[in-house]
Amino acid sequence: MNIILFHPNEILKSGRVVVKGRRFKHLITVNKARTDDTFKCGIINGNIGTARVVGIHQDAIELQVDALDLKPPDALPLTLILALPRPKMLRRIIECATSLGVKTIYLINSWRVEKSFWQSPVLQEEKLEKSMILGLEQCGDTLMPSIIKKRLFSPFVHQELAKVCKGTHKIVAHPTGKMVCPSGINSPVCLAIGPEGGFIQQEIAAFEQYGFDPCRIGPRILRVETAVPAIISRMYT
Amino acid sequence: MNIILFHPNEILKSGRVVVKGRRFKHLITVNKARTDDTFKCGIINGNIGTARVVGIHQDAIELQVDALDLKPPDALPLTLILALPRPKMLRRIIECATSLGVKTIYLINSWRVEKSFWQSPVLQEEKLEKSMILGLEQCGDTLMPSIIKKRLFSPFVHQELAKVCKGTHKIVAHPTGKMVCPSGINSPVCLAIGPEGGFIQQEIAAFEQYGFDPCRIGPRILRVETAVPAIISRMYT
Repeated sequence: MNIILFHPNEILKSGRVVVKGRRFKHLITVNKARTDDTFKCGIINGNIGTARVVGIHQDAIELQVDALDLKPPDALPLTLILALPRPKMLRRIIECATSLGVKTIYLINSWRVEKSFWQSPVLQEEKLEKSMILGLEQCGDTLMPSIIKKRLFSPFVHQELAKVCKGTHKIVAHPTGKMVCPSGINSPVCLAIGPEGGFIQQEIAAFEQYGFDPCRIGPRILRVETAVPAIISRMYT
Repeated sequence: MNIILFHPNEILKSGRVVVKGRRFKHLITVNKARTDDTFKCGIINGNIGTARVVGIHQDAIELQVDALDLKPPDALPLTLILALPRPKMLRRIIECATSLGVKTIYLINSWRVEKSFWQSPVLQEEKLEKSMILGLEQCGDTLMPSIIKKRLFSPFVHQELAKVCKGTHKIVAHPTGKMVCPSGINSPVCLAIGPEGGFIQQEIAAFEQYGFDPCRIGPRILRVETAVPAIISRMYT
């Protein structure tokens, strides 16, 4: 936990916060918090500051929050369009993308996405929120990403994609793509990544219709959870 | 499974192979293998070719291997030095690094590596081999990486590191490093990545003594399993 995140209403007027549950356990066991230690803290979707440990109790830790006067790091200007991954992987991928600074994630359908994935409890708002919080805590950020679920491929691509990707560099990851994935774009990017096994040819063609370049990244086929950091990291150098 | 890997002694003179266990299950349930389907196959540490399904039995699949005349993809000219990660993460990180084409991995000690990690069964040769095989199967490669375990930090750094990193671009990942991690090196690299929490200052200084540049990658602190693909992918563009 590289930042302790609070909901705005958790902080009392005096600047005191009482933290229980998961954050408490993590602060004690991993961060080895002791009285008078200071930690980086932040308000979800707000500023960053420091918090000093003023009391450690059996099931809670009491913190005094100082001036919250630092802005969170700049959002990555990248929109991630992801064919809905296997539930077990979704959690990790959301956490990973969040830790990289991605703020807009579309989860879309694709031919190779198993229908059952859309029924997974991992897709519930509070579960997604938990993955995002873990990503923010890891990377030291406060701004929650938006996750937008699009259960139907064609309506999304043909009615919304043009607007979603307007003014961006458009890339669809495709292991047999003719182009090698560019690097150092350093400007807004819209990146689509398919499911395990990839987008099918008709789906790639649909993305191409809206200006996306099918790009491969080296001679090897990567898991989605590897492709996400591998491709995103190249974009901003 | 984007390639079926065989040990050299599994293939009969006739070119027949009988596959059971994990590979059998995967071919049936994930790859949906049927008679006459062909799959990419390869010999571990050898060439790549295709295999045709000639028989499906209750607990085995019989394949006919054709000419194995393709070379595996070029190895990534990158040596990865990794502070031993938490056992649960080690498996995934080895699989990930293998799928990216890394062929030499040093697992080293560091101040923040918990002693118990070195006792983990995940470090047994056959467990490491399994993670590497999964990585190769994912990416379509055949060359097994070498994993070298170095239980003591100082002897490794002061007696071996100079030789290990000779003639390479040397980078040690460090969230507070002054330099931003370079990209597009496209030549041999020696990359050191610390444990969760990072290398301590004395360890960074030791790496610097041997020519390593402490580099950060953006304003966010990444998990080791995110940093590995994020940094490696930038090196070769």
